[in-house]
Amino acid sequence: MSVTFYYSPQSSASPVHWTLEELGIPYEKVLIDFRAGDAKKPEFLKLNPNAKVPVLVHDGVAIFESAAIQIYLGETFGVSKGLYPAPGPQRGEVMKWIVWTNVSLGEALSRVGRNFGGWAPEEERNVKAGLRAKQDVADLLQILDAQLQGRSYLTGDSITVADLHVSSWMEYVRMMQLDLTPYPNILAWMTRCTSRPTYSAAP
Amino acid sequence: MSVTFYYSPQSSASPVHWTLEELGIPYEKVLIDFRAGDAKKPEFLKLNPNAKVPVLVHDGVAIFESAAIQIYLGETFGVSKGLYPAPGPQRGEVMKWIVWTNVSLGEALSRVGRNFGGWAPEEERNVKAGLRAKQDVADLLQILDAQLQGRSYLTGDSITVADLHVSSWMEYVRMMQLDLTPYPNILAWMTRCTSRPTYSAAP
Repeated sequence: MSVTFYYSPQSSASPVHWTLEELGIPYEKVLIDFRAGDAKKPEFLKLNPNAKVPVLVHDGVAIFESAAIQIYLGETFGVSKGLYPAPGPQRGEVMKWIVWTNVSLGEALSRVGRNFGGWAPEEERNVKAGLRAKQDVADLLQILDAQLQGRSYLTGDSITVADLHVSSWMEYVRMMQLDLTPYPNILAWMTRCTSRPTYSAAP
Repeated sequence: MSVTFYYSPQSSASPVHWTLEELGIPYEKVLIDFRAGDAKKPEFLKLNPNAKVPVLVHDGVAIFESAAIQIYLGETFGVSKGLYPAPGPQRGEVMKWIVWTNVSLGEALSRVGRNFGGWAPEEERNVKAGLRAKQDVADLLQILDAQLQGRSYLTGDSITVADLHVSSWMEYVRMMQLDLTPYPNILAWMTRCTSRPTYSAAP
């Protein structure tokens, strides 16, 4: 069994990095230095033609898209560790929050970053589109906060790969200087999740 | 076993609808009429607080986000039908294309729709952002076209849930009046996929 993880710190590879640490499986890390052009090198483009991290190569098969990797790691290594449900409907609950984060929340955050942040040049921005994006993010965070009401973790009493994934994204939301104080359930749950020693081992 | 599918025609529920038809499992369909306000009704918001379709309820558990539902249907019902790989790295390949479509392609298409189409009011648009989005979509379609070079289907010689999912999205790309003629592999594969009788049974 061989697992190789291509990553860059403080990127969408970080949630996957954390999952790998929680799973405690042996894996090789390969740092992709974007400034040095690593992501555009032919050998990396063969693994991921999108020129992005993370990439996980498991027994010779390259998997990209962090949400796909998390679900894959969960089903492959997570069940015996209690981090992913056995086959059945509970898996759907874990999957839906992982995917929701990258698809729905990710799309709205992209609009915030492109209209207000440094994700796009000034001439491509539109302040009104950015304000709508911020409202959309707030609505999505409200949905997440409501899901966490009365629950220790996203899908129940025990932590799963969904919690690692989504709480890691919330740290990213905080880095974008979006205010999380209106969401007390999110804040309490983030502390529960990110106080695990594995979190700091996966920058 | 009970499966209930909440949908609307010509929406992101369509790829899931097609998968359900291909799987041939018994399921109940519930049409969500957005104009009539069905998606905002309390009983639907309990299933999906995002007020969107598709939603799949399997044995009482509600799953939202079409990419999550497709992966879930694949692993739960697709292996015995040959539409989803058995556990192992090949699953990662199917997952990565499903997720790539909703995350990476979906985000770029959203920017096209918001800056050129009717997805956002005039005052929130930016033509330069829209042009960049179109270029990003073109780059992503090029990646998909290259993946299909020399392959009958996305991950090899037989059709999987990934092909149903992604080719259904390509019909949507065509509806957005984005030109697919530069991508001959995509066009040939779309015909292979959408000529299946189940496709027209799932609007």
